[in-house]
Amino acid sequence: MKIRFKNARILTMKDGEDIFFGELHVTDNKISYIGEEKPEFADANWDRVIDVEKNVLMPGFKNAHTHSAMTFLRTYAEDLPLKEWLYEKVFPMEAKLQPQDMYPLSILGIMEYLTSGITANFDMYMAPKYVAEAAKDTGFRTVLCGSANDFGGSKESLKNEYETFNNYHELVSYQLGFHAEYTTAKELMLDVADLARELKTPVYLHNSETKEEVAGCVERYGTTPTAFLDSIGMFEYGGGGFHCVHMTEEDLNICKERGLYVVSNPGSNCKLASGIAPISKMLEMGIPVALGTDGPASNNCLDMFKEMFLVSGLQKIACEDATALDSMEVLKMATVNGAKAMGLTECDVLAEGKLADLIMIDLNQPNMQPIHHIPKNIVFSGSKINVAMTMINGKILYENGKFFIGKEPEEIYEQVNAVVSRIMGTSEAI
Amino acid sequence: MKIRFKNARILTMKDGEDIFFGELHVTDNKISYIGEEKPEFADANWDRVIDVEKNVLMPGFKNAHTHSAMTFLRTYAEDLPLKEWLYEKVFPMEAKLQPQDMYPLSILGIMEYLTSGITANFDMYMAPKYVAEAAKDTGFRTVLCGSANDFGGSKESLKNEYETFNNYHELVSYQLGFHAEYTTAKELMLDVADLARELKTPVYLHNSETKEEVAGCVERYGTTPTAFLDSIGMFEYGGGGFHCVHMTEEDLNICKERGLYVVSNPGSNCKLASGIAPISKMLEMGIPVALGTDGPASNNCLDMFKEMFLVSGLQKIACEDATALDSMEVLKMATVNGAKAMGLTECDVLAEGKLADLIMIDLNQPNMQPIHHIPKNIVFSGSKINVAMTMINGKILYENGKFFIGKEPEEIYEQVNAVVSRIMGTSEAI
Repeated sequence: MKIRFKNARILTMKDGEDIFFGELHVTDNKISYIGEEKPEFADANWDRVIDVEKNVLMPGFKNAHTHSAMTFLRTYAEDLPLKEWLYEKVFPMEAKLQPQDMYPLSILGIMEYLTSGITANFDMYMAPKYVAEAAKDTGFRTVLCGSANDFGGSKESLKNEYETFNNYHELVSYQLGFHAEYTTAKELMLDVADLARELKTPVYLHNSETKEEVAGCVERYGTTPTAFLDSIGMFEYGGGGFHCVHMTEEDLNICKERGLYVVSNPGSNCKLASGIAPISKMLEMGIPVALGTDGPASNNCLDMFKEMFLVSGLQKIACEDATALDSMEVLKMATVNGAKAMGLTECDVLAEGKLADLIMIDLNQPNMQPIHHIPKNIVFSGSKINVAMTMINGKILYENGKFFIGKEPEEIYEQVNAVVSRIMGTSEAI
Repeated sequence: MKIRFKNARILTMKDGEDIFFGELHVTDNKISYIGEEKPEFADANWDRVIDVEKNVLMPGFKNAHTHSAMTFLRTYAEDLPLKEWLYEKVFPMEAKLQPQDMYPLSILGIMEYLTSGITANFDMYMAPKYVAEAAKDTGFRTVLCGSANDFGGSKESLKNEYETFNNYHELVSYQLGFHAEYTTAKELMLDVADLARELKTPVYLHNSETKEEVAGCVERYGTTPTAFLDSIGMFEYGGGGFHCVHMTEEDLNICKERGLYVVSNPGSNCKLASGIAPISKMLEMGIPVALGTDGPASNNCLDMFKEMFLVSGLQKIACEDATALDSMEVLKMATVNGAKAMGLTECDVLAEGKLADLIMIDLNQPNMQPIHHIPKNIVFSGSKINVAMTMINGKILYENGKFFIGKEPEEIYEQVNAVVSRIMGTSEAI
């Protein structure tokens, strides 16, 4: 399969490389050419030639923290603080799910990712086999994240998942992880740390999302989650934390020293009133920051444009400084840094030999005009309406508002609403 | 012209009225029927029958504060504090504009409003004649706001504008206003207050947007802008303030007593690091709050979905309370309250006899599924991608991604980029 994108503005996201006019070719699942237009391309054999009409090709966004299958809880329980929301609303409903429910619930999430130009997710949820199948069947790239906690999971099950899903399918990989310090017994955390050293692999978890979480850990272990986990050897091979809103100086130093990724989730942190993460400070210290939507139960949308505006806007508010957080830095978080945090170094930027995970941004929309500075336009003004195409692993899965995922949208909506009706005893709301 | 919308979910936004299934008819520029489906409708004569396919009809959003023609500055000067941004970047470029430039620049803004389901704007800018023409020619509803300040405008010019634009065209009206206390000499403000009393009309202005603005006023007049303006009789017939971020207890009491509208602009307040307005407190006190995007130079997009998420999310962060600001309240701000603040009581809710300013929200998108609670879905998860149709004054101006405004989008983009090239000496950026 050979696809030629011609007449394109190309934003590779390579450090220091500006947007340029040219073409990009995809052969099977990889980028086979990026550069200027040449007369001989017109005569070559192509399966498809796409005139990009001076719109933008760029790497797909990487959603570095989510729980896709939580689509079933979108707007089910709103305007509640995290603990009440989690223990009184989320956990009881999750207990009613069947493993196979994760399949349509995850596909619904994947569909929304495609509309937002997201080409890969870092997905922490139950029944990872069904989540992996959803990715495989639709053509979406997913990195599963271990989610052990006191409700389930052990050293053995994590090791088994690690081996299974890192040898499952080219679109699927797996990183070691557990839910969070506050939901996981010390023994299990020690086991995870052991396993990380045995496998020489990084570890990911929800970290310091709320003040209460940090205070609880200080009460339990005499120190913050980051410092406690570091003290038990959790991060010998790196890893990262989701949220990282309430971080001490010492915590940030540990992140810096261990090369830990911070995955910020500003939409969720607003919605659950968790607070504003000190992103500017992290960047100053050289800590790599990626972006995630968190699950649709706490955000409620899966929209990288919203997260990009928020991470910048909230930082300006928190620092009382309109110059805080440059927009190119934000675009890097949403693409390259996310890819690195997720171990997806083969689809971080656009370059020959890299996997063809890329999107087309439609500039012929009023919100992208006039054209002063395209990356800033994308960060501050971009919207799902600008995603003209989403390609993953060389295949176009979404184009001009249509899905090419081997399923009809209506079929997925019906299946998801059936799950909701079954477990909540409600029919489709007015 | 008779249009029948059938098979619809209808959200009238009337107090206490839930969404119901039914139909809505438009005759010329008004809603002629809302209610249940009846067999006789099938046999009536219609110019067009639209099957809404169980999607949502609701009142259009009202953008209660903006400067549409500032589209020419979108992403021109980013990541700067308000004063530097305004005096060093915005004012010098504005000085190079020709009055007729406002025509295409405003139309570009109008096009973006249509993509976001915005059916009316409260527009403060120079050369209001061209702004009014842009609205009239495209079919958009605009309320012009007086913008007198030390760079231009007088009691006479305001009175003239008031009379001219309140008798201009059915889509155009005018409210008395001036830019802000910090840009307007005391004499001119006294004149505006005189005129307001003479015309028995409300007055609108930028109010208490930044800490520095309030401090400057305290230095100049010994009190806050709200209290100072009230002391000179500015609000005898009401009015409102745009932004109102830094308000004292006394300021809020004045708003309450005078029935002043607060128009919040959370996107702009993030972007310029102005702060978070005390919206929850205002609502508790019974102060009516509306929403605006502010101009595209400071936001940078004109997207009511973003403003709705932000006004809620920021309030939860500021109050450290995830229950702050109920989502139905937010939807009311974006529709009914905006209409009232702008004097558009004939298009505030969907009801028989009201003007047909309405939108169709597409629920058959992954971000709107499953269907638990539609208004919450719209507020927290909605996006421009969900705006299937925007109708103003009985005419469909935007439908399925296409504009019906008597102009081709490319023509407008070209004209806007030509203005930009002329005044900034740059050609279209890569």
